[in-house]
Amino acid sequence: MLHYNLCVIGSGPAGQKAAIQTAKLGKTVCVVERMEVIGGVAINTGTIPSKALREAILNLKGHQAAAPTVADFTDASDETFSNLQHSCHEVIQAEIGVVRRHFRSNSIVVAKGEARFTDPHHVEVTGSTGTKEIEADRFVIAVGSMPARPEGIPFDDRNVITSDELMNLPYLPRSMLVVGGGVIGTEYASMLSALGVKLTLVEGRSRLLDFVDAEITEALQYHLRQSGTTLRLGEKVTRIELIEPPEMARSGNDMMAEATLESGKTLRADCLLYAIGRQGATEALGLHAAGLEADKRGRIAVNENYQTQAEHIYACGDVVGFPALASTAMEQGRLAACHMFDQPCESVPHLVPYGIYSIPEISMVGWTEEHLTAEGVPYESGIAQYKEIARGQLLHDEIGMLKMLIHQDSHTILGVHAIGTGATELIHIGQAAIAFKATVEYFVNAVFNYPTLAECYKVAALNGLNKLRNV
Amino acid sequence: MLHYNLCVIGSGPAGQKAAIQTAKLGKTVCVVERMEVIGGVAINTGTIPSKALREAILNLKGHQAAAPTVADFTDASDETFSNLQHSCHEVIQAEIGVVRRHFRSNSIVVAKGEARFTDPHHVEVTGSTGTKEIEADRFVIAVGSMPARPEGIPFDDRNVITSDELMNLPYLPRSMLVVGGGVIGTEYASMLSALGVKLTLVEGRSRLLDFVDAEITEALQYHLRQSGTTLRLGEKVTRIELIEPPEMARSGNDMMAEATLESGKTLRADCLLYAIGRQGATEALGLHAAGLEADKRGRIAVNENYQTQAEHIYACGDVVGFPALASTAMEQGRLAACHMFDQPCESVPHLVPYGIYSIPEISMVGWTEEHLTAEGVPYESGIAQYKEIARGQLLHDEIGMLKMLIHQDSHTILGVHAIGTGATELIHIGQAAIAFKATVEYFVNAVFNYPTLAECYKVAALNGLNKLRNV
Repeated sequence: MLHYNLCVIGSGPAGQKAAIQTAKLGKTVCVVERMEVIGGVAINTGTIPSKALREAILNLKGHQAAAPTVADFTDASDETFSNLQHSCHEVIQAEIGVVRRHFRSNSIVVAKGEARFTDPHHVEVTGSTGTKEIEADRFVIAVGSMPARPEGIPFDDRNVITSDELMNLPYLPRSMLVVGGGVIGTEYASMLSALGVKLTLVEGRSRLLDFVDAEITEALQYHLRQSGTTLRLGEKVTRIELIEPPEMARSGNDMMAEATLESGKTLRADCLLYAIGRQGATEALGLHAAGLEADKRGRIAVNENYQTQAEHIYACGDVVGFPALASTAMEQGRLAACHMFDQPCESVPHLVPYGIYSIPEISMVGWTEEHLTAEGVPYESGIAQYKEIARGQLLHDEIGMLKMLIHQDSHTILGVHAIGTGATELIHIGQAAIAFKATVEYFVNAVFNYPTLAECYKVAALNGLNKLRNV
Repeated sequence: MLHYNLCVIGSGPAGQKAAIQTAKLGKTVCVVERMEVIGGVAINTGTIPSKALREAILNLKGHQAAAPTVADFTDASDETFSNLQHSCHEVIQAEIGVVRRHFRSNSIVVAKGEARFTDPHHVEVTGSTGTKEIEADRFVIAVGSMPARPEGIPFDDRNVITSDELMNLPYLPRSMLVVGGGVIGTEYASMLSALGVKLTLVEGRSRLLDFVDAEITEALQYHLRQSGTTLRLGEKVTRIELIEPPEMARSGNDMMAEATLESGKTLRADCLLYAIGRQGATEALGLHAAGLEADKRGRIAVNENYQTQAEHIYACGDVVGFPALASTAMEQGRLAACHMFDQPCESVPHLVPYGIYSIPEISMVGWTEEHLTAEGVPYESGIAQYKEIARGQLLHDEIGMLKMLIHQDSHTILGVHAIGTGATELIHIGQAAIAFKATVEYFVNAVFNYPTLAECYKVAALNGLNKLRNV
């Protein structure tokens, strides 16, 4: 029987980092992956494909500007879409190659097949070439998640789909309904809208991305609407059906999707993307044999060290729930590996940035205005508009803005929120500032390359400081 | 007679910041500008136009990737070039608008005309509508610089030009000689090469950009050559002439440029861009009347507070010499204004970043390997290649790299050097880290948005730390 110091189940970001971190400590590691290719959802159907699609769409536009105009893609065709999908697959292949090299150079064994616990220290791996048993001192469950597919919704991989099917959709819908205004729904809605798809997004709450700063979300909503997207906020979908398209709407599609809202409205489109909820991919794991169980949504509960009920079995990434981002999954994998082998490891949850790859993109680090107000922390905000900055002009980014939240008394930076070109990159400057308890004066005195978007930090700092002078 | 607390001569970045900073202190300010439009060289002929051209070229390429391939622009035509120039002029107009609004909202008076000192507290401003006299308590000379045009070089605005003429060149040269491998020569050479112009760059030293980290410069040189540029390093131009093109080379151009090198080689091209040296624009200022004088290259000497020999007269920006960047000019303007009105103001020259907008772009902050080795500071370098990072894959950036220099004992970050997409933005993360004396462990523990180029910091940190473990 094969024995390893660590067996990682799943080769996505969480699994990769747990495996590599452990291998670097000189331990033996095996990664079990049930898909033909390694990389997990992040590389194969989730993060990377969606970002590759986004990049390809922005390139098609000819520039990286944040605001697509309605007219930009009137000529987008099935062929265009198919080319876009193809260019994504190239990136996916390259990324798989990177992960494979990392595994090889760290002597990490990959076992292809479906893992199932037979007892707390053994898994049986069933692949195309048979079954083998693996024994390990410790385990990391990093099996990730999959889109929820509630009963009663007529998923057909073509007219009613989840995000998993989008990358392989054989046609470019002329119209689309996106149900769910979380990260996945919002990202795809903004991309498809940029491609010229007539888009309607339905979200049960009163705004998209409810964990994001309200001013930033409102800016996003404003610009989505400007670019032709219809937002139905505070609306619930009660029924989704496949219908035969009326004569007039026929476009080579046999069927189309119809959604009925609680408010009585009926919405129709070539395609409906269902983007509410994801399910931990734990069903086949045989958790009971390891003394564990998942909740109704397939998720596994962990403590602050990512240990499950069984202390030698850890769980990381999407399978443990929010925030379900690739970046946090990696961090969790690393922390779990450090914890199980008694390595010192620092983690500051407050400094974890969030990136949403909508068009325009959004990012944040630190606290939101809503949180600070609720906590009674006195703050002022400093704002910089991209269009007032040379680099913003060069990029023709009329939308972008960066907001810095500053403590009224100590002048320390409490949070940074950005929307616009490069926001997900830009946020890391604020992250470092918050980590080192920088005051707004740091940005006032810093010299920035000209022209860069980073100058927003200086402009926002001066703006905030001017407001503070008037307090 | 008009009286002001401060009279600023020149409306470029240095003059703007000096004027605005002073106005914010409640002082009266007048800015004298001899050009029809405000903004100085940075907006009108230098920084912004060159960056706008760069952006337009990258957009034409359809993506922001760092490495243009030879084939990309075989179809670039005079019309393409003219469109590129046009799109730059739009950006210039927008930037002028921004500066004008800043001046207006700060009640800064603009006097159009040529300024000449009549005595240490008075300048005579001669414009198209006549002459007026301005009296001021203090002055900032921020007149900037212009390309040097040595005697004996047959500048004709068409076949032998300086960077000032490039933006208005009425045709796209098929071949070009760039003389000078400093920032301006290197930036334009890489841009024109990306446009498919057959390009030769001649530089007297053994490498381009001699203040930049050698590994980064070598990467740039390698990739310029890969994209078809001929570099003639360590070669001196002894003679430049306009010649009639031989029958075969005739392409609608009456003349072409011929350069003779000290080594005996003869180089010919449709157009020669002379990019060695710039001259302070002080000739018409009547400095003697203010008790001042400029050196042979028109530059004015200042102390660490940017004061000239006359303590109420300051000088900032290109007119004081190296590094002659818009970013440092702004900082100098701000520091001068703070100093003259006794405002506390902090400045850390060591933290000033450098940005070179070549294709691929380059940026640096902190020390170079050369400097640390000379000073005997023990360091290790950590390197991240863009192509090993998901975001680099998405951008198809095969060139990009980020190098972090780490103190061997204290693990503090000593310098960051980057080449590739977004390098000028990315460097500000390292700048903050250096400012707060961060150790490499900060980047090991930090969570970055995925996928971003900022992840290079984590990869480079891990790479450096691994090397340090082996010391």
